[in-house]
Amino acid sequence: MSATAIAYDRAMSRWEPNARVRLEEAALKLYVERGFEQTTVAEIAKEAGLTERTFFRHFADKREVLFSGSAVLQEILVSHVAGSPGSATPMAAVAGALGATCPLFEERREHARHRQSVIDTSPVLQERELLKLATLGAALAGALRERGTGEPAASLLAETGIAVFRVAFGCWINGSDRRTLADHLGESLTELKSAVR
Amino acid sequence: MSATAIAYDRAMSRWEPNARVRLEEAALKLYVERGFEQTTVAEIAKEAGLTERTFFRHFADKREVLFSGSAVLQEILVSHVAGSPGSATPMAAVAGALGATCPLFEERREHARHRQSVIDTSPVLQERELLKLATLGAALAGALRERGTGEPAASLLAETGIAVFRVAFGCWINGSDRRTLADHLGESLTELKSAVR
Repeated sequence: MSATAIAYDRAMSRWEPNARVRLEEAALKLYVERGFEQTTVAEIAKEAGLTERTFFRHFADKREVLFSGSAVLQEILVSHVAGSPGSATPMAAVAGALGATCPLFEERREHARHRQSVIDTSPVLQERELLKLATLGAALAGALRERGTGEPAASLLAETGIAVFRVAFGCWINGSDRRTLADHLGESLTELKSAVR
Repeated sequence: MSATAIAYDRAMSRWEPNARVRLEEAALKLYVERGFEQTTVAEIAKEAGLTERTFFRHFADKREVLFSGSAVLQEILVSHVAGSPGSATPMAAVAGALGATCPLFEERREHARHRQSVIDTSPVLQERELLKLATLGAALAGALRERGTGEPAASLLAETGIAVFRVAFGCWINGSDRRTLADHLGESLTELKSAVR
């Protein structure tokens, strides 16, 4: 890239503080309307009023646009487990960490529903979503070990926690009622405790 | 394909009753030695003493060779849940079904270890493995619903069961001791019950 192009790029990004969010919204809109396979990066950039170059500054490819939130999720999960009081059981630490992620989603149920509908159309996206969840589970297990939980308990609780979250998330997305994600998460945790006994 | 080629093919497959297993073993050997990405279908077929055409009669591509066991696993899980006594709790039905799959693996720890080492080298294979486990979880949840368990309990127990199996399987593969997969599975279930309380 020439010096002029770099300078132009920097100037543009200064004026595109919300480029990332605009690209995410444009991508999801097109994936819902036309299908994931049928949508190109050029079309997403155009829909967002940005360039392809800007797209690739934010995302490796059109699949990754749907998974940009996982770093923030992981940060919340790990920091909440690390910061949970010493008196909390590992299970309580996991439940607290999962609960701490709910505010990220509560106002965006329509968005979450659209995103899920796109993922459901493509095995490639389903696999990527599962890898994201497995990565979150591994990070959660690591945070539990840091806090003193041994193995296999740390991995078991982390994997179980992610499974509970996944089921609760599905109920919340598909629910037509007014219950929040936090409500569904609490209910799923209670159900699990009673079923495992 | 010409009529002669078809006749040849049929004659060959009559004489290759164990072609599938030979291809699986050849593929795993080459993936371990040379890497998954570096191995071609032609090389796998040659190693097994078979043709590429025979390979593609058994597997869609070189990735699927590593996942051919999942149909059998699903059959075992579903039929054991369906056949578990009416007095068994849903959790006991899941535990019994998971336990029923152990004999498939016990004699093949070295094979399982090699397979896992190959999967660990490739995100594409990790994603496929996760999709396999999610598919098994969905089938298990379906079997529980058939047996009268409501949602979200059915999905929670199924997902949790798969998580427990995954953790136990990892401990078994990495263990240097003489404990069986069934031992590890039992221990993980006990750990989970105590941790969830």
